[in-house]
Amino acid sequence: MSGNSIGKLFCVTTFGESHGPALGCIVDGCPPGLELSVADLQRDLDQRKPGTSRHTTQRREADEVKILSGVFEGKTTGTPIGLLIENTDQRSRDYSDIAETFRPAHADYTYHMKYGLRDYRGGGRSSARETAMRVAAGGIAKKYLKECLGMEVRGYLAQLGPIKVRRLCWDEIDNNAFFCPDPDIVPELEAYMDALRKEGDSVGARINVVATGVPPGLGEPVFDRLDADLAHALMSINAVKGVEIGDGFACIEAKGSCFRDEITPQGFLSNHAGGILGGISSGQSIVAGIALKPTSSLRLPGRSINVRGEPVNVVTTGRHDPCVGIRATPIAEAMTAIVLLDHLLRHRAQNQHVHTSLQPVPAEL
Amino acid sequence: MSGNSIGKLFCVTTFGESHGPALGCIVDGCPPGLELSVADLQRDLDQRKPGTSRHTTQRREADEVKILSGVFEGKTTGTPIGLLIENTDQRSRDYSDIAETFRPAHADYTYHMKYGLRDYRGGGRSSARETAMRVAAGGIAKKYLKECLGMEVRGYLAQLGPIKVRRLCWDEIDNNAFFCPDPDIVPELEAYMDALRKEGDSVGARINVVATGVPPGLGEPVFDRLDADLAHALMSINAVKGVEIGDGFACIEAKGSCFRDEITPQGFLSNHAGGILGGISSGQSIVAGIALKPTSSLRLPGRSINVRGEPVNVVTTGRHDPCVGIRATPIAEAMTAIVLLDHLLRHRAQNQHVHTSLQPVPAEL
Amino acid sequence: MSGNSIGKLFCVTTFGESHGPALGCIVDGCPPGLELSVADLQRDLDQRKPGTSRHTTQRREADEVKILSGVFEGKTTGTPIGLLIENTDQRSRDYSDIAETFRPAHADYTYHMKYGLRDYRGGGRSSARETAMRVAAGGIAKKYLKECLGMEVRGYLAQLGPIKVRRLCWDEIDNNAFFCPDPDIVPELEAYMDALRKEGDSVGARINVVATGVPPGLGEPVFDRLDADLAHALMSINAVKGVEIGDGFACIEAKGSCFRDEITPQGFLSNHAGGILGGISSGQSIVAGIALKPTSSLRLPGRSINVRGEPVNVVTTGRHDPCVGIRATPIAEAMTAIVLLDHLLRHRAQNQHVHTSLQPVPAEL
Amino acid sequence: MSGNSIGKLFCVTTFGESHGPALGCIVDGCPPGLELSVADLQRDLDQRKPGTSRHTTQRREADEVKILSGVFEGKTTGTPIGLLIENTDQRSRDYSDIAETFRPAHADYTYHMKYGLRDYRGGGRSSARETAMRVAAGGIAKKYLKECLGMEVRGYLAQLGPIKVRRLCWDEIDNNAFFCPDPDIVPELEAYMDALRKEGDSVGARINVVATGVPPGLGEPVFDRLDADLAHALMSINAVKGVEIGDGFACIEAKGSCFRDEITPQGFLSNHAGGILGGISSGQSIVAGIALKPTSSLRLPGRSINVRGEPVNVVTTGRHDPCVGIRATPIAEAMTAIVLLDHLLRHRAQNQHVHTSLQPVPAEL
Repeated sequence: MSGNSIGKLFCVTTFGESHGPALGCIVDGCPPGLELSVADLQRDLDQRKPGTSRHTTQRREADEVKILSGVFEGKTTGTPIGLLIENTDQRSRDYSDIAETFRPAHADYTYHMKYGLRDYRGGGRSSARETAMRVAAGGIAKKYLKECLGMEVRGYLAQLGPIKVRRLCWDEIDNNAFFCPDPDIVPELEAYMDALRKEGDSVGARINVVATGVPPGLGEPVFDRLDADLAHALMSINAVKGVEIGDGFACIEAKGSCFRDEITPQGFLSNHAGGILGGISSGQSIVAGIALKPTSSLRLPGRSINVRGEPVNVVTTGRHDPCVGIRATPIAEAMTAIVLLDHLLRHRAQNQHVHTSLQPVPAEL
Repeated sequence: MSGNSIGKLFCVTTFGESHGPALGCIVDGCPPGLELSVADLQRDLDQRKPGTSRHTTQRREADEVKILSGVFEGKTTGTPIGLLIENTDQRSRDYSDIAETFRPAHADYTYHMKYGLRDYRGGGRSSARETAMRVAAGGIAKKYLKECLGMEVRGYLAQLGPIKVRRLCWDEIDNNAFFCPDPDIVPELEAYMDALRKEGDSVGARINVVATGVPPGLGEPVFDRLDADLAHALMSINAVKGVEIGDGFACIEAKGSCFRDEITPQGFLSNHAGGILGGISSGQSIVAGIALKPTSSLRLPGRSINVRGEPVNVVTTGRHDPCVGIRATPIAEAMTAIVLLDHLLRHRAQNQHVHTSLQPVPAEL
Repeated sequence: MSGNSIGKLFCVTTFGESHGPALGCIVDGCPPGLELSVADLQRDLDQRKPGTSRHTTQRREADEVKILSGVFEGKTTGTPIGLLIENTDQRSRDYSDIAETFRPAHADYTYHMKYGLRDYRGGGRSSARETAMRVAAGGIAKKYLKECLGMEVRGYLAQLGPIKVRRLCWDEIDNNAFFCPDPDIVPELEAYMDALRKEGDSVGARINVVATGVPPGLGEPVFDRLDADLAHALMSINAVKGVEIGDGFACIEAKGSCFRDEITPQGFLSNHAGGILGGISSGQSIVAGIALKPTSSLRLPGRSINVRGEPVNVVTTGRHDPCVGIRATPIAEAMTAIVLLDHLLRHRAQNQHVHTSLQPVPAEL
Repeated sequence: MSGNSIGKLFCVTTFGESHGPALGCIVDGCPPGLELSVADLQRDLDQRKPGTSRHTTQRREADEVKILSGVFEGKTTGTPIGLLIENTDQRSRDYSDIAETFRPAHADYTYHMKYGLRDYRGGGRSSARETAMRVAAGGIAKKYLKECLGMEVRGYLAQLGPIKVRRLCWDEIDNNAFFCPDPDIVPELEAYMDALRKEGDSVGARINVVATGVPPGLGEPVFDRLDADLAHALMSINAVKGVEIGDGFACIEAKGSCFRDEITPQGFLSNHAGGILGGISSGQSIVAGIALKPTSSLRLPGRSINVRGEPVNVVTTGRHDPCVGIRATPIAEAMTAIVLLDHLLRHRAQNQHVHTSLQPVPAEL
């Protein structure tokens, strides 16, 4: 129950640092009888892993996951699933500069202030490398949701810097390096990223996640609302600075007469609420969006201080993502799936039946 | 650990329905020795309570809180604090219409689907009336943070429908019915709300919360980040559809060279991050913003269905807030304070010292 | 999640001190649709309440419970159930002696050392008065278990000081002031207690609890075993110093060939294990026993110290139970029922079906 | 928060099966700055590991633990510590008999009923092999308690079958294969065990644990009492059927005038309570005892059923401990240390100071 666990019934606890020997996690609470193999998890891991295109960090990690427990004869047994990924590309380099310096906008300063010491190699625990385990654990959740209930959790890049997606073609997402659903803007994205890399700068992004086939009734009043737990899970992703459910911040200027999603016997007429009413799923698609800040690891020098409080100039020379948002899509999917499965199990505990929903309105872009 | 608790060490559990006999909560984990009386909690409760201006619901509730335990001779004892507020203005009216109808965009449908039955009187558990207890519990957290560490948690209305606050005068917030820090726009707000009420419509709003005096080091990697827990707590407030930390969604279009908050020996040079790096407080002001949707209780008729799946037209005749955001300011403050105190206690548990921060950059509007 | 909650899915949180205005609790996670009224809870409360015979404390409390939320039109709604019992017999007496004195073997010294201050009136939070709320909350669990699954949780006095029960007549338990299932020894018990009261001394007791109709499969490996959670719940009752499952400490001298409960197609041939194997219920009766120490509130003077570390002589003149074990039977039943319902809900969450058991062996005395 | 975690602030989550590729655990919440290496954990692991004498199972496991995270430059960082032990001696044998059979008094039947399927190789998750990780995690807790507070947690064999320890020489415990503190009875124990092995039978045992140097104030009212959490932790050890604190079940026949531990300015005059009053440590030694049942894996045939409900005769031919109690001493120490450290952290969170105790009475045998 310390800070490295998420979920009450489907509970994921991760460990591992960027440049330690391995990353790992324990998935506790997965129902028994689910067919599960390494192959089920590897696809999402491959999507998240670094070095797959010139637009992401050139660190090379195989990110091959091992299942150490909880699966027997190809099926989950109900006991905790231990997962492990060994770090293979921790270059032996000299960290003495970074050891004493607080890189601006990194967790260096806050970890140091919190703990009094820190593993400074590649950001240690604060590195996004930890999210590999989230993707692995989320893969289990996604498989269960899909096989047992037909639910699907899918994400996509909705905006990269100033470039916004204009149409949502689900089939296109895997056809480019950006998880972009709009093939028309892919050349634009590539040109933008190439220029950015030359500048030595970075930029933010927006990822949307949509869950379909969600039964109504998931979510608990009043604190563990489904949207509150999604906000927690999504905000826990490195670099995320904002979370929206449904229309999100656009609701501020909306009138109630337009915003409320009216219902007919044939289904909801709109989905401004993003599939959640009173913290509980309505059976419509769950729609969430997140904003990811630009990475702070830049070749452009920045002012900061060292552990002695002296001013220093920081230039990042390591391998970094100019847009951390690009690789965040499978992570956002994973976190969403973990929350949904956790709430499905919580719902089942208290309520005997999982209801069928009204025909949901399709989620719009 | 069911859905009605928040906080791991400073843990608040609430109960009560809109039209039941009483609301209550248990605050477990408050450190001993804090001077505490009903008066400490009543001010915030009075701010949140309905019927204080023509711009909020005309339901009249005294919202007088009783302390039933955990305080002895004027001081907290370390044992759980039981709080109670009796409902006094549950008008005896005929609920037969609402009993069978799912009001659009309310929790009626989702509660019914989840539980198979529901307390339909005034929304039951899903009513924002429950937030009275959050404000009471948050008042304890606010007092502890202020007296023991000099921390302050303050919120304000940042936008109401299309009207945005242009300057932040903390002293003005209590001088109007809107928690508005900009006296120049108060007449505009009044005119807008009067027109809205005549229309029978409602509108959204944005509330910002700022916590000052926060020591660095609060927050846990990797799931229980301070920002993730704030997102959870703030998204759990009724009608909230979005949460931002620091610059929030504006980070999407930002370049890393501008967004990163540089540090000098004299302090941070900016606070785009909202006072949190790597999920841990930096010692700068914590800045969060939330979007609240327009209430769905309107005099304008809306389409929906009843429990038999038949189409119905819904008109809300009860007493409702045309902008639920107005009364949300003390609630957002309360939730923020609860999260901060919880993390302060968690920090103390693992780390012997609470560090002093660099001089923080003042939070800008 | 602080110290005053028990249960993960059926979660009970209590508040209140011996001489404060009221005791209360929140029961979160009760499934919806259970018929529930005050009358369902009052019977057990009346059994536990003080002053019902000359063998227990003469404090007079009505112990009338109010249901403040979570029940609508006679049925639970799935939302948290708030319960309240007002204290009515807090005699206004002079506590100045006890305020500065640590009564030997009470919690006075440890609360003072923990918190630096304490509510000294009647033991404050450490008083067994708090168990009234456990009995009320447990009453809800007992009702659910009985109505939905036919499970029954019943306790009895198995030993009082040197006097052991020799036969188990369930029907006799309510026919005497001791929850004694053996009518033959009741006169012995009465004589013993009368003599004890004259001496001004106190004595220990043993309570057994038996749960019947338990389906197999309840309990989680490896830490939240059903027996581990029962041990936790039972040891949390005031004055309990030991917990046994099944044969308990008698297993030390047993040979495996005798102790193992063999199975035939017709059922288990014995129940040395007390209905739990590997931490999971076997479908046999769950059998647990607890040892309660003699109360330390005696008319016989005892040596102790005061808050200044000076030696004092302590004589208890208040109203106390010469054998706290007597009133512990409904408390032990309540705690057992809370644990069983919590594990039933946890089981349901992860596993779709609750299995039918082999014919269980009847629990022996 | 599922069943495979223990501790709220010092939280240990384990995974792994008897015959899977590896066992592992995550220790989350260890304070930063503790010097820690594999050598610190290996001593206790070597004590627990099988095959060290002819009186325990002849399975040969190196039980070499790896630290995968949370330690940097020889010190804990405050981030989660990942531990791994590979299984090396999983003999490739034919499990087809055991696959369909429920061995009497094992968890075979209950796991099958709970999950519908099970890893039958060597008991899978229900095997005591899992306790290797508890010992490793407990080693971290023991080290922290000793180095930072001078606390020591030590256990010993108090009884094996009918043979009781008569004196407590702490220095003798490591000088024999039984963790026996009484050198006089070691020959008796050896003869008894040799005879038992010849019979093909097994026997129970009692282990006592004593923690010294415990500050007063650890433990939470009312459910998370220190004794309740110890009972939970100790009962969660495989084969444990009873837990006592202090005098335990002997309190039933005790009079209050003798049982209460009187206090003088020089300290407590006795320690019947086992160092815990009102659920909170008194500063005296914590004393707990547990009863372990005889293992059910015997060469003597026993009646049972198979998965089709047919009667079968079960004879265990594998490698097993004739007295599982022997190897339980380091496990009981580990569980006790985990609970104590968890409560120390919880205490620190809420209370600023850890008090110094009165001179404690030495724990007697």
